[in-house]
Amino acid sequence: MKKFTSFADVPDYRALLQQALEIKQNPFGYQHLGKNKTIGLIFFNPSLRTRLSSIKAAYNLGAQAWVLNAGADSWTLEMADGAVMNGSTQEHIKEAIAVMSQYCDVLGVRTFPGLKDRDEDYNEVVFNKILQHATVPVISLESATLHPLQSFADLITVAETKKTERVKVVLTWAPHVRALPQCVPNSFADWFSEVDWVDFVITHPEGYELAEQFTKGARIEYDQQKALEGADYVYAKNWSSYQNYGQVITQDPSWMVDARHMALTNDAKFIHCLPVRRNVEVSDAVLDSPNSLVVQEAGNRVFSMQTVLHEMLKPQG
Amino acid sequence: MKKFTSFADVPDYRALLQQALEIKQNPFGYQHLGKNKTIGLIFFNPSLRTRLSSIKAAYNLGAQAWVLNAGADSWTLEMADGAVMNGSTQEHIKEAIAVMSQYCDVLGVRTFPGLKDRDEDYNEVVFNKILQHATVPVISLESATLHPLQSFADLITVAETKKTERVKVVLTWAPHVRALPQCVPNSFADWFSEVDWVDFVITHPEGYELAEQFTKGARIEYDQQKALEGADYVYAKNWSSYQNYGQVITQDPSWMVDARHMALTNDAKFIHCLPVRRNVEVSDAVLDSPNSLVVQEAGNRVFSMQTVLHEMLKPQG
Amino acid sequence: MKKFTSFADVPDYRALLQQALEIKQNPFGYQHLGKNKTIGLIFFNPSLRTRLSSIKAAYNLGAQAWVLNAGADSWTLEMADGAVMNGSTQEHIKEAIAVMSQYCDVLGVRTFPGLKDRDEDYNEVVFNKILQHATVPVISLESATLHPLQSFADLITVAETKKTERVKVVLTWAPHVRALPQCVPNSFADWFSEVDWVDFVITHPEGYELAEQFTKGARIEYDQQKALEGADYVYAKNWSSYQNYGQVITQDPSWMVDARHMALTNDAKFIHCLPVRRNVEVSDAVLDSPNSLVVQEAGNRVFSMQTVLHEMLKPQG
Repeated sequence: MKKFTSFADVPDYRALLQQALEIKQNPFGYQHLGKNKTIGLIFFNPSLRTRLSSIKAAYNLGAQAWVLNAGADSWTLEMADGAVMNGSTQEHIKEAIAVMSQYCDVLGVRTFPGLKDRDEDYNEVVFNKILQHATVPVISLESATLHPLQSFADLITVAETKKTERVKVVLTWAPHVRALPQCVPNSFADWFSEVDWVDFVITHPEGYELAEQFTKGARIEYDQQKALEGADYVYAKNWSSYQNYGQVITQDPSWMVDARHMALTNDAKFIHCLPVRRNVEVSDAVLDSPNSLVVQEAGNRVFSMQTVLHEMLKPQG
Repeated sequence: MKKFTSFADVPDYRALLQQALEIKQNPFGYQHLGKNKTIGLIFFNPSLRTRLSSIKAAYNLGAQAWVLNAGADSWTLEMADGAVMNGSTQEHIKEAIAVMSQYCDVLGVRTFPGLKDRDEDYNEVVFNKILQHATVPVISLESATLHPLQSFADLITVAETKKTERVKVVLTWAPHVRALPQCVPNSFADWFSEVDWVDFVITHPEGYELAEQFTKGARIEYDQQKALEGADYVYAKNWSSYQNYGQVITQDPSWMVDARHMALTNDAKFIHCLPVRRNVEVSDAVLDSPNSLVVQEAGNRVFSMQTVLHEMLKPQG
Repeated sequence: MKKFTSFADVPDYRALLQQALEIKQNPFGYQHLGKNKTIGLIFFNPSLRTRLSSIKAAYNLGAQAWVLNAGADSWTLEMADGAVMNGSTQEHIKEAIAVMSQYCDVLGVRTFPGLKDRDEDYNEVVFNKILQHATVPVISLESATLHPLQSFADLITVAETKKTERVKVVLTWAPHVRALPQCVPNSFADWFSEVDWVDFVITHPEGYELAEQFTKGARIEYDQQKALEGADYVYAKNWSSYQNYGQVITQDPSWMVDARHMALTNDAKFIHCLPVRRNVEVSDAVLDSPNSLVVQEAGNRVFSMQTVLHEMLKPQG
């Protein structure tokens, strides 16, 4: 695996999931792969879970890691090809990425959407430049449109906790105070619409339809209550509009997931990528209930990253 | 040991001190304990000594470490239970600490007092939330009221340099340009009032009395000259008032420790937690004299941390 | 080797170069030297290449590393001896450096010139204080006047790519939008004027003469075209004036290295320390041509650092 940026980069998701469950049982069992390897982590935006779980994953594998906060620690990067760099940008991403590839064996990069120019975001202009100039395998630590390590961790979490062969998984929009990217719900749909033992439903107010390239024909149900009926897993997440790009269409507080919503489900487990705005997206009662898996889910971020690193560092061929 | 936040958390300070002196002689001798372990270090405030000595202690033990600058690197944390998080805070400390516990084997945390609401500070509201939500052992890297790793390093420093069985140790208030917390003097009193081979005296202008829960009946002498007579160790430190909470009562420059003060002592060694305001708290002549132990003392921060990590990582039984 | 701050610190540059080429072939072959060693890296200014290549060099040697962003992570440092520290500085460099020496086995430090007081910069006032107070070997990660790890990496790059016994190396001034330090060109001259298989030429507009202590009588040619004739290597770099200290004398865009300049050379390789302002210092066509070695050169920063660490950590005697 030379890149991990979306579900499409995974040759066999069942095999990857099995590998992750195996690594979770035996986290220090593959240190021959990490020996003398260095994982480079570049953040264009703040991060807690991704930063720390990626570092821990590298350590578990016996590898080393470094972190660069782009901007704060280093130089302001120019993204445009052909630019005459007589302004505020100090280094071109061409050099920056090619050079950082010299200092590590795998590069993880977090970028973020501007939420202003949909084409620029959905064409992954920045991330594709990174892929173009990197000379080592690249892992998306979240891009303008997707967050695949999160979705893979979500899949691990559902797989290791499900009580029946098939499960109903509901992704529900939830209110927030800011306009957020679509990365996490896009990515969740990108993965869960493909899992053959999942009945996947998306629910949100009208106007919050996600891009079809990621929902891939998944069932969309505008009636949240109806969507939640019989759910085994409820995934709550806010996002801004894709059609009216980056806009907040509604902040309807009735969409906040609380005990009444959970009562409609099949004693569903609650999952969320975190950070979560308590009592805005989800009530305390739900987050603090035994059915909440959010901490375990965050813990699985170590194993989603470690499994991807394992795929990249193992003998290829 | 599941937490290290004050002298009271130490079952046997004599044994801990012996262990520290042993580890200092043989710093790489316990790497079986650190193998595959990761020490997480969270700073809500800047740090030089604590940050770097903690990292070095982890490395000496054969463990790995990560550092998170809360705020700068990650999200703004909500501390209040039941908060409706529709303001500027982005993540609740409940999730933040529970999640970070997933990414390490021991968690070190630095918080700081607000110096405004004495009850909030002295009830250690923030640190207690951290203890409540952590699922791994927790080390205080300084809290609102105490700095136990510093005091333990001070104890190591005095123990390894003392020339007589009993020693007189004087903690003296010193001037500063800002209102500082009481953490370091509280903690020094918390530890040194308990050491059976120390004659412990505290001296400060009236109005700077420390909390009795930490001074525990130690001798207080308002006449600095009298206090210093016959001292074997002088510990200088500024602090703001506990009674008039957080206020500066006086900045009397005659309390600055200089050569005339040291001349009153029994050729005393000078100690200070650093950073020190030269020629405000202490004169250059004292800091640059051979009797100054401040660098050695800072070096012992590695061994106080390493010894606490050793206690937490060794087989518990 | 107890310090590495300039060419003069290297007892035998030929031996050091051979060692570097050997280490590049066998980067993990010296891990017995790095075992239980910690490399401390202190940055008073932002850095990408130096930060990450130094970390990688430590890891390659089997050592650990820590990084401190002075100012952001820790305290504001006082530089003046005898200062009464009643202002904004919180810790004296005396203590800071002596203390950090306790937490590592080798200390790398990056400082920067103020570009205002030439005497202060060229006397290396700050760096000399660091050398004075450090108790472990010190590596310059760039000082007010020199950047020796860069120059050593440049030497490795030229040595490993040259096709003839002797080569002509031209250092050419290039335009920029800001007033930059003279560190890199000073250092390049400091090293390349000494290499016995190099014909070294410096070219720049009048008024940009470098300090003679570093050019050491090297040939200076004010006609850029004439200087480039027959060159095997072209090193482009902007710098501000040494005579009119820190001033921009001209920004003449005709000095930007483009294809027409390169056509004058002996099919020269292009080198640059990076970051580079594309289409201001050098054209895209040159940077993106197969003759550009800038990425390989940045990669060699790992081996220049690793070789210096190797010299400092190997048994002395």
